[in-house]
Amino acid sequence: MINCKSDNVVGVCPEIMEALAACNSGTESSYSADVYTGKVKKLFADIFETEVAVFLTTTGTASNVLALSALVKSYQAIYCHTDAHIHTDECGAYALFTGGATVSLVDGKEGKMNLLALQKAVDLAHSLAPHAQRPGCVSITQSTEQGTVYSIAELEAIADFSKTNGLPVHMDGARFTNALVSLGCTPADMTWKAGIDVLSFGATKNGAMIAEAVVFFNKQYAEHFEYVQKRAGQLVSKSRYLAAQFLGYFKSDLWIKNASHANTMAQQLAAIFRKHNVPLIYPVQANELFVILTSQIVTALRDKNVHFYEWGQPGSNCYRFVTSWATTQSEIEGFDSIFAEVVNGIAHNPNRKN
Amino acid sequence: MINCKSDNVVGVCPEIMEALAACNSGTESSYSADVYTGKVKKLFADIFETEVAVFLTTTGTASNVLALSALVKSYQAIYCHTDAHIHTDECGAYALFTGGATVSLVDGKEGKMNLLALQKAVDLAHSLAPHAQRPGCVSITQSTEQGTVYSIAELEAIADFSKTNGLPVHMDGARFTNALVSLGCTPADMTWKAGIDVLSFGATKNGAMIAEAVVFFNKQYAEHFEYVQKRAGQLVSKSRYLAAQFLGYFKSDLWIKNASHANTMAQQLAAIFRKHNVPLIYPVQANELFVILTSQIVTALRDKNVHFYEWGQPGSNCYRFVTSWATTQSEIEGFDSIFAEVVNGIAHNPNRKN
Amino acid sequence: MINCKSDNVVGVCPEIMEALAACNSGTESSYSADVYTGKVKKLFADIFETEVAVFLTTTGTASNVLALSALVKSYQAIYCHTDAHIHTDECGAYALFTGGATVSLVDGKEGKMNLLALQKAVDLAHSLAPHAQRPGCVSITQSTEQGTVYSIAELEAIADFSKTNGLPVHMDGARFTNALVSLGCTPADMTWKAGIDVLSFGATKNGAMIAEAVVFFNKQYAEHFEYVQKRAGQLVSKSRYLAAQFLGYFKSDLWIKNASHANTMAQQLAAIFRKHNVPLIYPVQANELFVILTSQIVTALRDKNVHFYEWGQPGSNCYRFVTSWATTQSEIEGFDSIFAEVVNGIAHNPNRKN
Amino acid sequence: MINCKSDNVVGVCPEIMEALAACNSGTESSYSADVYTGKVKKLFADIFETEVAVFLTTTGTASNVLALSALVKSYQAIYCHTDAHIHTDECGAYALFTGGATVSLVDGKEGKMNLLALQKAVDLAHSLAPHAQRPGCVSITQSTEQGTVYSIAELEAIADFSKTNGLPVHMDGARFTNALVSLGCTPADMTWKAGIDVLSFGATKNGAMIAEAVVFFNKQYAEHFEYVQKRAGQLVSKSRYLAAQFLGYFKSDLWIKNASHANTMAQQLAAIFRKHNVPLIYPVQANELFVILTSQIVTALRDKNVHFYEWGQPGSNCYRFVTSWATTQSEIEGFDSIFAEVVNGIAHNPNRKN
Repeated sequence: MINCKSDNVVGVCPEIMEALAACNSGTESSYSADVYTGKVKKLFADIFETEVAVFLTTTGTASNVLALSALVKSYQAIYCHTDAHIHTDECGAYALFTGGATVSLVDGKEGKMNLLALQKAVDLAHSLAPHAQRPGCVSITQSTEQGTVYSIAELEAIADFSKTNGLPVHMDGARFTNALVSLGCTPADMTWKAGIDVLSFGATKNGAMIAEAVVFFNKQYAEHFEYVQKRAGQLVSKSRYLAAQFLGYFKSDLWIKNASHANTMAQQLAAIFRKHNVPLIYPVQANELFVILTSQIVTALRDKNVHFYEWGQPGSNCYRFVTSWATTQSEIEGFDSIFAEVVNGIAHNPNRKN
Repeated sequence: MINCKSDNVVGVCPEIMEALAACNSGTESSYSADVYTGKVKKLFADIFETEVAVFLTTTGTASNVLALSALVKSYQAIYCHTDAHIHTDECGAYALFTGGATVSLVDGKEGKMNLLALQKAVDLAHSLAPHAQRPGCVSITQSTEQGTVYSIAELEAIADFSKTNGLPVHMDGARFTNALVSLGCTPADMTWKAGIDVLSFGATKNGAMIAEAVVFFNKQYAEHFEYVQKRAGQLVSKSRYLAAQFLGYFKSDLWIKNASHANTMAQQLAAIFRKHNVPLIYPVQANELFVILTSQIVTALRDKNVHFYEWGQPGSNCYRFVTSWATTQSEIEGFDSIFAEVVNGIAHNPNRKN
Repeated sequence: MINCKSDNVVGVCPEIMEALAACNSGTESSYSADVYTGKVKKLFADIFETEVAVFLTTTGTASNVLALSALVKSYQAIYCHTDAHIHTDECGAYALFTGGATVSLVDGKEGKMNLLALQKAVDLAHSLAPHAQRPGCVSITQSTEQGTVYSIAELEAIADFSKTNGLPVHMDGARFTNALVSLGCTPADMTWKAGIDVLSFGATKNGAMIAEAVVFFNKQYAEHFEYVQKRAGQLVSKSRYLAAQFLGYFKSDLWIKNASHANTMAQQLAAIFRKHNVPLIYPVQANELFVILTSQIVTALRDKNVHFYEWGQPGSNCYRFVTSWATTQSEIEGFDSIFAEVVNGIAHNPNRKN
Repeated sequence: MINCKSDNVVGVCPEIMEALAACNSGTESSYSADVYTGKVKKLFADIFETEVAVFLTTTGTASNVLALSALVKSYQAIYCHTDAHIHTDECGAYALFTGGATVSLVDGKEGKMNLLALQKAVDLAHSLAPHAQRPGCVSITQSTEQGTVYSIAELEAIADFSKTNGLPVHMDGARFTNALVSLGCTPADMTWKAGIDVLSFGATKNGAMIAEAVVFFNKQYAEHFEYVQKRAGQLVSKSRYLAAQFLGYFKSDLWIKNASHANTMAQQLAAIFRKHNVPLIYPVQANELFVILTSQIVTALRDKNVHFYEWGQPGSNCYRFVTSWATTQSEIEGFDSIFAEVVNGIAHNPNRKN
């Protein structure tokens, strides 16, 4: 049995549970005025080696759309990849929180925006002013929705173009740490040094309970953001419990260890697929894998309590597997056996219908 | 000299100017409570052979987005063609007026939504609920942005699918009458009998000054729409002057005559292009033509005061020509001469650079 | 017979009808790129003796809320008088166009904001940050909803406070010219010289058909406003017809003459009320009067075709009379006779029931 | 030392910490599809003795404004008390989430809406249609912002009026349980039996960590609410951790015990104030007290580590004290001593300046 549906089906790291317990005594100021939130803000500055403005939220969607609402006016367009989470999986939340901004989709291989396509889209919009929405900002997902990771050079190229065109850059880092350990660079390298203005920093998928953050490197966009947060229903009253999760998360490099582990598990899973000549649709660079499976294999796996999602258009035969901090070596080994068994079984019963 | 940039570069029909003058005496109730607006509402019911709820507006964008705001909730998606005016040319107004609804783009040849593509998009959205926006409504442009016209059967097919899926149908009729005379059917045939719930009825492009209307055939969506109109800044105080334009427009079939004339002029223009083997990108079925022209020809035509727009991505070599109620036979003849002259001139100077 | 319901129940000045006719030939660029709109912009600069950014709209509500949307963020509050039109009569349009900004109501005598009350409201909001909306801007109505006129000193006092507190100032000038001729000052004196940043300049009530404008004195707030206008459904395609109305309006001081006339008629009406000891609730300084009438008098007047609105809470016995450019001397004289007759008739039949 | 600033400055009940630990093993479906959330939904139905639709959120502001967004259209008004939290303390969040609905404030003694004032406000709005916002819904806070509690009869009177006028009724129950134990009635009595359509059910202030819920009794308003929740950034991925808090909260009547305790502590605090003739501004019926204190007393108390907020307009001399599940008997006894000492000290040094 292994559940690879998502990295949000697993529980909370013991270290983070302990951090929650550790803060649970006495009275504390509420609404982010507590001492724990203060410590977290300091930690973010240390980790990113620069001054930052940090706001804690309860979901990745909230982080993304609050950040975007600080970057664009309601008559502007957000440029993002066709498969960006903000476009495909957040029920249009950006449109609500920005007062009606829209997304302009940019294609590109392996979940990464093609720079030329981005340039053409921005040019077209300007050529139609004011009938088309004014270009507003660029949003990059790192690691991407296809489990790939932008290189520093790729990030810089997009950010350079954006800056030249007056467009601030947002990074959706729901799986920030998986990308970070994949590149083996510093948090600063992958963000503000590459030209990122604001980051949605996710901790929930990597071991926390309910803990996300908006991190502004370009602090001009953070002006009065406390109002944005409050008005969005994202200013938690007992804020110490958001903060405590980050204290546990950053302590003794837990976040790095968790993401490294998840990525390693993904590589082992990939090796199993490769061994059986199952096509991996994208390079496996973080903790997500996308494969083409026959419906026979899918049914047989699910019969054996292997859980994963079909991805994209129903009937596409594309399936996603996600590993996490909690995926165990023995689960992977179990999957190795199951998969071999399933493939061999089907090889011997090729006419079995699903 | 001929200006084919758009059907909004020409003036107002004399008959409509007369109607404005005719209503300009004495006092009248304001905010649509005047007798002229009352008459217009009655006329719409007569013309469409059914009860309707009618609201007059000042722009086509306002008509479109107010109508859409009555059909969808803010968490829903509006399905429209990739080239729909609401998506490409209204600066995202639908997002503002719907409180953050989004568009889901559906491809299709000749400016018409492909039904299969529509079905797949709706299916995908439902498969992702509630992470993807809930399907909300379908918006069809008639005549289309490519100057083509949906047949009644095509309209019915889309409306049938939509109804089956609980999606009301909006028609953007900025050039409604051009489509109507092209099909040679009744206004009822092209709208509610085919399954349209609400229509943006345009008069401005076809001879009026500032006169658009939202026409609800399915009156459940019109409930409390007077508030929607007021709140949108579209409840004109001296409303008699909007109404009077429609009185002039409908009198003695002016609207039909104007659109027939514009369509005829478009056919004559198309014949000229064909004569010179200029590719017409789409069938010419209303009053818009799209052609591929070399930059040499474009420059030469503009030098001779022939005006028209480049269309689509800058550098595409695609150009749009629009005829109107005001296009004259002699302008077309003049263009015939100019075009022959230009083509011949270039034929004799093939190396001329632009 | 006299209709004093509003200054929007009367028709359009002949001079403005002529201006519309005069622009109705040939082709013109659309969407405000026409030569007429260019001339109007120049005229506004001349009249206000400064550089301005001008955008033409179709309703006063549109002007007000588009202007406000340029001044405030969605988490901010607009400070206005309890009786301000934006609060009482525009169906909350400001909330739509600002993406959810709110109004903070400030009391004050005679329709004018009390400066001390404004200060307290702003202080309270800051003391509750970020739980209360951040103060965003101040909106003043000139002439006020009670037919009074802020003196230059009163405007300056509010604007000074606002500037000190980082709040830009909007003026709702639906009846701008009535206030202007009442004060006898220059347009510059009553606006930017007094500290106004943006003005809703109304022409419709003072003789035009459908013609309003947003005038930015502080041009930083006008940045990208063409997108705001387009997206609001307020970028009229045949824009020359909005512009032509202003050309007629400003020609030979028509606007000044019209407003002067309306104000004079209001004074004559006030004199009639005073003659009969009818209480005028507010000083009559522009073209609106508010009186307390018994229901006997109201019924008798309406029986004789004198039209006017009850004002405020139903049953308040408060009634509003509005004069306009079209109110004639003979209508006033007719009212004088009718009113005397009504009052005398009731004096002789005191027991008559209504 | 005692901290009475709010019931959100205290920690999380041990029983709820245990419930969190108890759910922290194995994989679980995310986004409210987990078994814990299923159990919580069942519990709510049991507790309220009726079918309900329940959605878990992370803040009280989110609960309030999501609930309201299900009740009103963007052109409608929400009727609430002048001191309602949605108006004074949520940064206008309702305006964002409803797409621009507005509040219409209704006065009334002791934090309760006056029914006659509500009726007048609704009548006025209808008399101004469509220029004024259409009445949309009524929002009641129970217990109120003044620490008072509507009787069942008072709730019924407001709900009856609302129903007659087509207005659904929302209850802001941030301190629902404090009101419940104050009235000594059943949850059903205080909600749907009295005419409430939807409830914001708060648990955070009464012992939970981050746990609020929207509870629909009238399920027509809950249609498609899962999209509303998702799009608002309130669909938590690891949803089991929200659900677990409610499991702990409802187990062995913890919620009732906690609120009863807090209310008892408030009564003891009130007795202390009464003993010293300190005016209690409102009846103490739940866990909040409002008193008038001299600045001398305020300073002296704060010097002795007694914490509380000034309330209302700065300088009003009104102060709020809040008790909670965590307030101890010995803290109250400590306050008794401190307060006596402070009062006596001042009595002996009447000229001491602050």
